[in-house]
Amino acid sequence: MRKRLTLQEYKEGVLSGNRTKLSQAITLAESMLESDVALASDLVQEILPLTGKSIRIGITGVPGVGKSSFIEAFGKMLIDEGKSVAVLAVDPSSQKSKGSILGDKTRMEKLAGDKRAFIRPSPTGATLGGVSAKTREAMLLCEAAGFEVILIETVGVGQSETSVKGMVDFFLLLMLAGAGDELQGIKKGIMEMADGVVIHKADGANRATAKKAKSAYENALHLFPQGNNNWSTPVLTASSITGDGLDEVWKTIQSYVAKMKDSGFWDENRASQRLNWLDENLQFLFGILFLEHGKVQEMLNQNRKRVENGELSPLSLARDLIDAFSQSTKK
Amino acid sequence: MRKRLTLQEYKEGVLSGNRTKLSQAITLAESMLESDVALASDLVQEILPLTGKSIRIGITGVPGVGKSSFIEAFGKMLIDEGKSVAVLAVDPSSQKSKGSILGDKTRMEKLAGDKRAFIRPSPTGATLGGVSAKTREAMLLCEAAGFEVILIETVGVGQSETSVKGMVDFFLLLMLAGAGDELQGIKKGIMEMADGVVIHKADGANRATAKKAKSAYENALHLFPQGNNNWSTPVLTASSITGDGLDEVWKTIQSYVAKMKDSGFWDENRASQRLNWLDENLQFLFGILFLEHGKVQEMLNQNRKRVENGELSPLSLARDLIDAFSQSTKK
Repeated sequence: MRKRLTLQEYKEGVLSGNRTKLSQAITLAESMLESDVALASDLVQEILPLTGKSIRIGITGVPGVGKSSFIEAFGKMLIDEGKSVAVLAVDPSSQKSKGSILGDKTRMEKLAGDKRAFIRPSPTGATLGGVSAKTREAMLLCEAAGFEVILIETVGVGQSETSVKGMVDFFLLLMLAGAGDELQGIKKGIMEMADGVVIHKADGANRATAKKAKSAYENALHLFPQGNNNWSTPVLTASSITGDGLDEVWKTIQSYVAKMKDSGFWDENRASQRLNWLDENLQFLFGILFLEHGKVQEMLNQNRKRVENGELSPLSLARDLIDAFSQSTKK
Repeated sequence: MRKRLTLQEYKEGVLSGNRTKLSQAITLAESMLESDVALASDLVQEILPLTGKSIRIGITGVPGVGKSSFIEAFGKMLIDEGKSVAVLAVDPSSQKSKGSILGDKTRMEKLAGDKRAFIRPSPTGATLGGVSAKTREAMLLCEAAGFEVILIETVGVGQSETSVKGMVDFFLLLMLAGAGDELQGIKKGIMEMADGVVIHKADGANRATAKKAKSAYENALHLFPQGNNNWSTPVLTASSITGDGLDEVWKTIQSYVAKMKDSGFWDENRASQRLNWLDENLQFLFGILFLEHGKVQEMLNQNRKRVENGELSPLSLARDLIDAFSQSTKK
């Protein structure tokens, strides 16, 4: 039985920047136990006024692109510049797929060892909605604990990119130079989500191809819609081994922040993200309330296949599920 | 008070290909009245075994790209080739924005006048979830009525593209040649959704720029991920005035259909679309059941702004809403 602290203890622990307490608070927020969800929800409400001051950066890319080494090198650079950095991971699928991100604690040793850094692996065994909701809470807790930059890592092959895009200020896509092969793994739509693209591992023999890739992607992205923030996605090259380009990435993000705060998009975006967060929570809790409801679950399991095969109309099943639910809750 | 037919009358009317009955059935499916929803749901279940035989094509592009003229010219060509064509529109936003698509019945006169064509304007005054759910049902009714090609028009600036992409076999993006200006209006992410891109209005003085745009987009899309159907998005040019290129578009779609049926992606995609359709319906009905629930709606209206401002934690509000809902349904 895991030990619980009081709301006050969690709050003070987090606000004092105590790592252990912060970890415990995040564990609480990740818990699926009803009592924990309630306590976590109160905790988040308590610390909410002290959140929002960090720069939230989403980092994605296919396995093998070097996300961990990039985050370690980039995070180290930020720390050397006097920033405090928290690293979170979102990817429910990662457990059964290409290397659970940040799962291996021995990675990011340099960063993990630093007092100014906080590294939190991906929450395990939750639905996507759950994971993304919980990652938002972890992010807010890290902000309340005083972290100035939050790096959220996600594998560019899962379903989690959209939800990460929906909780960060800047979405960074890591890519490898090459004849487009590096795209095989990546999911459609991610390219257009990116606020910045970095051609990674641009060192040694790769430097030339990286430069080529850079201009190719610059031309391609030039043909893309700009989105309502009027930001045209820059393409950079970087190496986590030599450190080349990391500073450029940070400068780019800083100029993005300045421009967006200036245009008012920064606040608009965060406001609409809060409303999306509400919708996510409603759907997540609705899931617990409705989809995990015994009778509903049973009917769903029995008929899901028939819907997939086209025998049963989803509308009919949906109506039956809702009816069954209403009936039983009325009892 | 609109006259209702019996389930049997609707079914026989639709299956016999009777236009008036088909229109009435779609109107029934678009109704928000509980009794109509129930009847429509039964009707869809009844005709379901007779659906799925058409080619479902989504067509999007910014206002001014000439979607209506393209659909009229393309539809006319298909009819001349002996196909029957149904045209549907999805766009809740279109009512209050750039030209309600297909709203103006006087457009598409040639097509509307043809016995082999059926044109249905966008359903009005429903939520996006509602509209997309209802459009799916309209599509199935048209299939049951024997239409071989379904064209679903959506404005590339709204929120409806994703749901249209989720109900069609082939998603076509219309663009204009020019120095990227044509992208100003279009929404991010749509480019990567497209199974085919057509540079439209490639006639007269535009022909040269259209050819330039074609190769520029070909190079750009070459750098894109292919998605799990291993289809690389082709870029074509077409004119609805001269008719040039329309045949190429149709050939491309036919080769896509052949390839996807061959690889098995066609069936996989339709199966997963059915499951998405179930989720959409659950969320839609959940909306009616939960979000339109008096107490919930009241609390939501009172606190939505506080969530947007960051005063109130979405998690707390979501939990309160769910609680209020459970309480009242238990009564």
